[in-house]
Amino acid sequence: MTKRIDKGLIAEENAKLEGFLKQDYEALGAKLARENINIDEITAKAEEFQIAVPSWGTGTGGTRFARFPGIGEPRNIWEKLEDSAVINDLSQCTERVSPHFPWDKVDDFKELKQTSDALDLKWDSINSNTFQDQAGQEHSFKYGSLSNTSAESRDLAIQHNLDCIEYGKALDSKTLTVWVGDGSNHPGQQHFQGAFERYLESMKKIYAGLPSDWELHIEHKMFEPAFYSTIIQDWGSNILAAMELGPQAKSLVDLGHHAPNVNIEMIVSRLIQFKKLGGFHFNDSKYGDDDLDSGSLHPYQQFLIFNELVDAEYRKQEGFGPNYMLDQSHNVTDPIESLVNSAASVQRSYVSALIVDREKLTEYQNANDALMCSNTLKKAFTTDVSPILEMARLRKGGAIDPIAVYRKSGYRAQAGVERPNSGGNGSGIV
Amino acid sequence: MTKRIDKGLIAEENAKLEGFLKQDYEALGAKLARENINIDEITAKAEEFQIAVPSWGTGTGGTRFARFPGIGEPRNIWEKLEDSAVINDLSQCTERVSPHFPWDKVDDFKELKQTSDALDLKWDSINSNTFQDQAGQEHSFKYGSLSNTSAESRDLAIQHNLDCIEYGKALDSKTLTVWVGDGSNHPGQQHFQGAFERYLESMKKIYAGLPSDWELHIEHKMFEPAFYSTIIQDWGSNILAAMELGPQAKSLVDLGHHAPNVNIEMIVSRLIQFKKLGGFHFNDSKYGDDDLDSGSLHPYQQFLIFNELVDAEYRKQEGFGPNYMLDQSHNVTDPIESLVNSAASVQRSYVSALIVDREKLTEYQNANDALMCSNTLKKAFTTDVSPILEMARLRKGGAIDPIAVYRKSGYRAQAGVERPNSGGNGSGIV
Amino acid sequence: MTKRIDKGLIAEENAKLEGFLKQDYEALGAKLARENINIDEITAKAEEFQIAVPSWGTGTGGTRFARFPGIGEPRNIWEKLEDSAVINDLSQCTERVSPHFPWDKVDDFKELKQTSDALDLKWDSINSNTFQDQAGQEHSFKYGSLSNTSAESRDLAIQHNLDCIEYGKALDSKTLTVWVGDGSNHPGQQHFQGAFERYLESMKKIYAGLPSDWELHIEHKMFEPAFYSTIIQDWGSNILAAMELGPQAKSLVDLGHHAPNVNIEMIVSRLIQFKKLGGFHFNDSKYGDDDLDSGSLHPYQQFLIFNELVDAEYRKQEGFGPNYMLDQSHNVTDPIESLVNSAASVQRSYVSALIVDREKLTEYQNANDALMCSNTLKKAFTTDVSPILEMARLRKGGAIDPIAVYRKSGYRAQAGVERPNSGGNGSGIV
Amino acid sequence: MTKRIDKGLIAEENAKLEGFLKQDYEALGAKLARENINIDEITAKAEEFQIAVPSWGTGTGGTRFARFPGIGEPRNIWEKLEDSAVINDLSQCTERVSPHFPWDKVDDFKELKQTSDALDLKWDSINSNTFQDQAGQEHSFKYGSLSNTSAESRDLAIQHNLDCIEYGKALDSKTLTVWVGDGSNHPGQQHFQGAFERYLESMKKIYAGLPSDWELHIEHKMFEPAFYSTIIQDWGSNILAAMELGPQAKSLVDLGHHAPNVNIEMIVSRLIQFKKLGGFHFNDSKYGDDDLDSGSLHPYQQFLIFNELVDAEYRKQEGFGPNYMLDQSHNVTDPIESLVNSAASVQRSYVSALIVDREKLTEYQNANDALMCSNTLKKAFTTDVSPILEMARLRKGGAIDPIAVYRKSGYRAQAGVERPNSGGNGSGIV
Repeated sequence: MTKRIDKGLIAEENAKLEGFLKQDYEALGAKLARENINIDEITAKAEEFQIAVPSWGTGTGGTRFARFPGIGEPRNIWEKLEDSAVINDLSQCTERVSPHFPWDKVDDFKELKQTSDALDLKWDSINSNTFQDQAGQEHSFKYGSLSNTSAESRDLAIQHNLDCIEYGKALDSKTLTVWVGDGSNHPGQQHFQGAFERYLESMKKIYAGLPSDWELHIEHKMFEPAFYSTIIQDWGSNILAAMELGPQAKSLVDLGHHAPNVNIEMIVSRLIQFKKLGGFHFNDSKYGDDDLDSGSLHPYQQFLIFNELVDAEYRKQEGFGPNYMLDQSHNVTDPIESLVNSAASVQRSYVSALIVDREKLTEYQNANDALMCSNTLKKAFTTDVSPILEMARLRKGGAIDPIAVYRKSGYRAQAGVERPNSGGNGSGIV
Repeated sequence: MTKRIDKGLIAEENAKLEGFLKQDYEALGAKLARENINIDEITAKAEEFQIAVPSWGTGTGGTRFARFPGIGEPRNIWEKLEDSAVINDLSQCTERVSPHFPWDKVDDFKELKQTSDALDLKWDSINSNTFQDQAGQEHSFKYGSLSNTSAESRDLAIQHNLDCIEYGKALDSKTLTVWVGDGSNHPGQQHFQGAFERYLESMKKIYAGLPSDWELHIEHKMFEPAFYSTIIQDWGSNILAAMELGPQAKSLVDLGHHAPNVNIEMIVSRLIQFKKLGGFHFNDSKYGDDDLDSGSLHPYQQFLIFNELVDAEYRKQEGFGPNYMLDQSHNVTDPIESLVNSAASVQRSYVSALIVDREKLTEYQNANDALMCSNTLKKAFTTDVSPILEMARLRKGGAIDPIAVYRKSGYRAQAGVERPNSGGNGSGIV
Repeated sequence: MTKRIDKGLIAEENAKLEGFLKQDYEALGAKLARENINIDEITAKAEEFQIAVPSWGTGTGGTRFARFPGIGEPRNIWEKLEDSAVINDLSQCTERVSPHFPWDKVDDFKELKQTSDALDLKWDSINSNTFQDQAGQEHSFKYGSLSNTSAESRDLAIQHNLDCIEYGKALDSKTLTVWVGDGSNHPGQQHFQGAFERYLESMKKIYAGLPSDWELHIEHKMFEPAFYSTIIQDWGSNILAAMELGPQAKSLVDLGHHAPNVNIEMIVSRLIQFKKLGGFHFNDSKYGDDDLDSGSLHPYQQFLIFNELVDAEYRKQEGFGPNYMLDQSHNVTDPIESLVNSAASVQRSYVSALIVDREKLTEYQNANDALMCSNTLKKAFTTDVSPILEMARLRKGGAIDPIAVYRKSGYRAQAGVERPNSGGNGSGIV
Repeated sequence: MTKRIDKGLIAEENAKLEGFLKQDYEALGAKLARENINIDEITAKAEEFQIAVPSWGTGTGGTRFARFPGIGEPRNIWEKLEDSAVINDLSQCTERVSPHFPWDKVDDFKELKQTSDALDLKWDSINSNTFQDQAGQEHSFKYGSLSNTSAESRDLAIQHNLDCIEYGKALDSKTLTVWVGDGSNHPGQQHFQGAFERYLESMKKIYAGLPSDWELHIEHKMFEPAFYSTIIQDWGSNILAAMELGPQAKSLVDLGHHAPNVNIEMIVSRLIQFKKLGGFHFNDSKYGDDDLDSGSLHPYQQFLIFNELVDAEYRKQEGFGPNYMLDQSHNVTDPIESLVNSAASVQRSYVSALIVDREKLTEYQNANDALMCSNTLKKAFTTDVSPILEMARLRKGGAIDPIAVYRKSGYRAQAGVERPNSGGNGSGIV
């Protein structure tokens, strides 16, 4: 607990910036008022915004070539929780943590829940892992898990997911996220239909174990770790699987899991329309599942996705209420800094989408005034909403400039001392 | 009629090659016999194989930059039929022609049917066109057709499709293929969900006009002519639309209409599994909807697609029976040559897939013997089945070497004389 | 001349917005002052910024499928100049026009120069066209121009480029831009090395005709109109060709001409480093050479490109001084509106790049502080520099809100009256 | 030594297949004779064909997510040599092994050379590794090696490459291959030009240490492990670096290291033309650097690459003589099987390219007969040259069916016994 960011430090640093923030906030407020937007209403919405952090994201990621660990990396879920608390102290919008099993498995889940409660943290979606073999595992996942030709391997994978639901109940989670790497590396290696039928059969058994107030989120991914075919390779296979399973099954969108050039915001719209949008794994990417910091490369795309989400809210679309989570790799940055920064980046997209003039946009759309449609979105996007984000953090007790406060806090250096033997030069799992 | 390829010429040219063909056929027969494959059974199946040609494919294609017409291009559907008859004379596997309206509209459809009957040609799927405005058209498709925000434009597009069904009845066709270019060029230009709802509403009206023994095929395409979003951008939107409409609606796969790197054979498998594979537009491509000659760049991909199709046949998959059609552009070749060549290329993929040892493949798949799975497919693919294709043509009265016979026939030069004022330097529509 | 935008109208409309602009400008000035940036110095640089418009961009573009013309399209270079003058009236940063031959060929180039002088317009780079055949052309470009196997076709293409230089001299242009569509649609169609050797030989003859104060810009493009191979397919072939030719030959970057996922800003850096960056064709794209409005999809990428350009300026990189031009298609918007809007979008990227704190960025780069490097760029990018752009226009006599003024001016409707028989339903050349 | 494949077993298995092989070889010989091709001359060339195996390729690869080891994996370079000898026993075209340092570092290189001599193996290009930190490494490569902002890290990387040259001298290698993962994950993280200048400066120091009869091969790669920018991202940066360094520096092409849709055979042609083609890393891929088995997905592309190579040989192109090597990952197969299979696949492409009728192809190219150009290549490609490959192996003492012999040999099971504690569940480095 001693490792939390000192509230005094935050206040002290905020005090230095508050004067300028007020000036900027007022100027922005005046500008928005001309458009009949009340800045404080937007700020209030920004304050409510929440995005989960992945427990594994607090460690340094890597590639198949190498992992270059940072200092003071968390060595277990308890230390990951400490780091998560720090992230929320600074960002004030990341109060939920998404665990990964078996990586985060503990003997006493009650103790884990008490610890998270004490840190004002809640548990987001449970992530199961059937893309690796665990030490001593009886039946391998080398050739697949839920879709394996071997019933023994499939049963192991099903049971692991059912176990995950039990862990989640103890943590008061309400969602199970299933991503599998099942697929093939050679044409012919897998009978596509047979494999998909086995996958669906396995998933039905997991779905049957789902409490009635839970959701099951299916995550698609074009490729990696399988390099010829992947069982849930795109949103098409994803939504069909979700439809086969039932109303509690939904699709989860990871921004880095699509083919080149694909229009992701349109996929988001389709999932909303068919009441199957379960949630997001936010990150950014240029080539594949690069797991770069959210919004670091394609901030306008991230805005366009939130334009769909805010529009669905605005239209009170039935069955709409996705989970938001970060899922990034952080190979060359301090993971705490990247997560704080990325949470704010996603929050920025949300706030920018809130100030889109939707009435006018609709008018322009109906009139096929393509240029003014584009300009209406761009107007919101180019408006600098930083003062709103900063004010939202300030009002909730967070840091106006969270990276600066974090660096001043000396948290990472202290972790380096308190967490010896963390890291290791292996390649990275994300 | 005089323009058909002279049977005497075919016979004469075949006579020169028949000796070698027999040698090659015997050698291949002996080789296949070792695998317990009866070559004549395969040849019989090759003889039954049919793939439709598109009426518009008999003209030289172009790009938005230019079109470089060839000589003697067909100026109307009657001349396109003449060329199609020639193609079938040579290839013996293209007895169906797929028309496009309004390009192929005639005053007297009975006369058109009599003409095609006389040429031993049948009519394949009807293609509607709502991606262009016709001269004097009252309501424009500039901003979309079936999904336009204007009810007048939508109604016009619906009515055109209903008209197409009428034309098709007169021609004894059984399928309507709907491809629309509807989409947007600017973020925000179109409300994705609104547009898709309007599309579905329009399609339901067309579906309602479908005779009970017809199918409605929906064609997806990632982009072009719209460059930010397209209404049926992928197989996901396609199959959802087909499911909304009902059992007579199915999805059509054009090989050039996908995102880079996408595994098309897997999409084919999914559509088969969900009983929604309607048919194909065969062509090849490297970058986008390039409409190159089928199998000219990615012959193994074409084989892998047929591996799925033959496997479905082999498994007697319920509801399976797709239409095959060529859809190519021919910017730099004689379209007749390209269509003959491409029909044979697709037929080759079919025949190669027929000789896959499916029992062994299943064994290897069940044993996760990835290498032998791959080698089993490769063994069929590398086997040169040319003698089977040539023998199938010979036995049906076609040409062993169709390109050579065609060139010798002088057909194109004659067409150049008989079809003055064909062509034109405009850019091309495909 | 009567069709220019009335200065009184501009002043009147500006008057309505000036009060708010001053408020916003002051607030932004205060914010920048904290970073030791003098807003008026930035505004002065914004006022100097110039980007050329392409003469052909004033018409509605199209695709190979269709072209949906707008009203009042310019029917010749004289009317294109009128539209260009209007664009510059509004944007105040587009005083140069880039012509295209033979499309813009006139009998009397002196008259053309006098007309452009009278409109306060100058001439940018000359674009030659050897991707189409002109009516009555003796030797076709169907199979290539500068690289054609036929010496006659090559000579025709060379001569056309030499003619273009003459036209350019009369117009006081200083650059020839050569883009050719030469390539192939089938493996084997072209001998790659032979074709490139012929291309280089032809280009050397053009280069020999270049006045000593001119530059020759080579434009690369991955594909289209050739769909298997293209002679100058990427910046690699481009820079090698430019190096073979000599110091007056440089490479031109069109943002839509690259493979998916390519890092274009890095290519820009390489060309700067090797003193071969000639210029840009700005536009945006999602799939291929989509020619969408600049910055409409990937504003951050456009900013990152200007980050390289401003950095080269800042470092006083030897041999640096590229041409900027818009090259867009405008299939669904009023071309004048899109060009005004896009010029401002590119200008925005330039201004945003000017306020990057380059000293701090260098420090962070040297310290491998990846997160703060990223945040330093993002800080500049998220700062809303609209007031600077608006003030720059105001100070130069342009419109604070150019689209609004343009719409109020009634220019397009008037053009519709004065330019009968413009347009046509053919497919579009861009 | 005892672990070599028993020659008696090979002979015994060959004996079962020789009868059929002779039949097939004769039939093929007769067919080729009609084209004036002497099959034995082709077979002789096939016998001369050599492709190196990478020492690391004998172990099971993995991804950043997991590695699923096989049994009996080699634990050091001595065991990798044993496996390599087996591969060559079977394939008879892989007598060279390409080592990787420091992975293959030994105390006594003389002993290593004697061992390889005894196994009839030679050493191919030396691969340096500066993409990982080694245990206890003083200056990290986390932020780059040859281009690092830190001179200490750069010097370490330079020295390692100079060491590699020394190891290579001891092994009688003649080439150093340099691939670095240097790049960045965030816009702004790296100053592109500064980094490239540092890279060139470092490479010049390595080049200076190169013996006069060696070559330095530079390998480009679009992305991974860096996900925003990579220092040698494509062939453009590659050839420019090679040109800066001097005539002993050349470019190496790995088939999986390009942007989507890129025409690799054309890049090969450009490198040949500019005398800078150093060699190849053969593998196949669908999405990125997937490192799948060579020719397993895109056999026609592999053929088209060899079409360029054989054409350069045919034209006696100056300065032509690239190295061939396999570089694959083998996540789900026995690496020995994959390497044997892939060597034969590359050899097949070479043989197929040898039987292209180049005189006719040239004629068709000069006549712009695109269809017959395509068909000329396809005729060679579809001809089943398996009998030539099998006969070449038979004549050299290898196995007609190498996979079958290998499986019968029991080599892998024996290795499982003799190499305890191999493998490990970490993720894989390839």
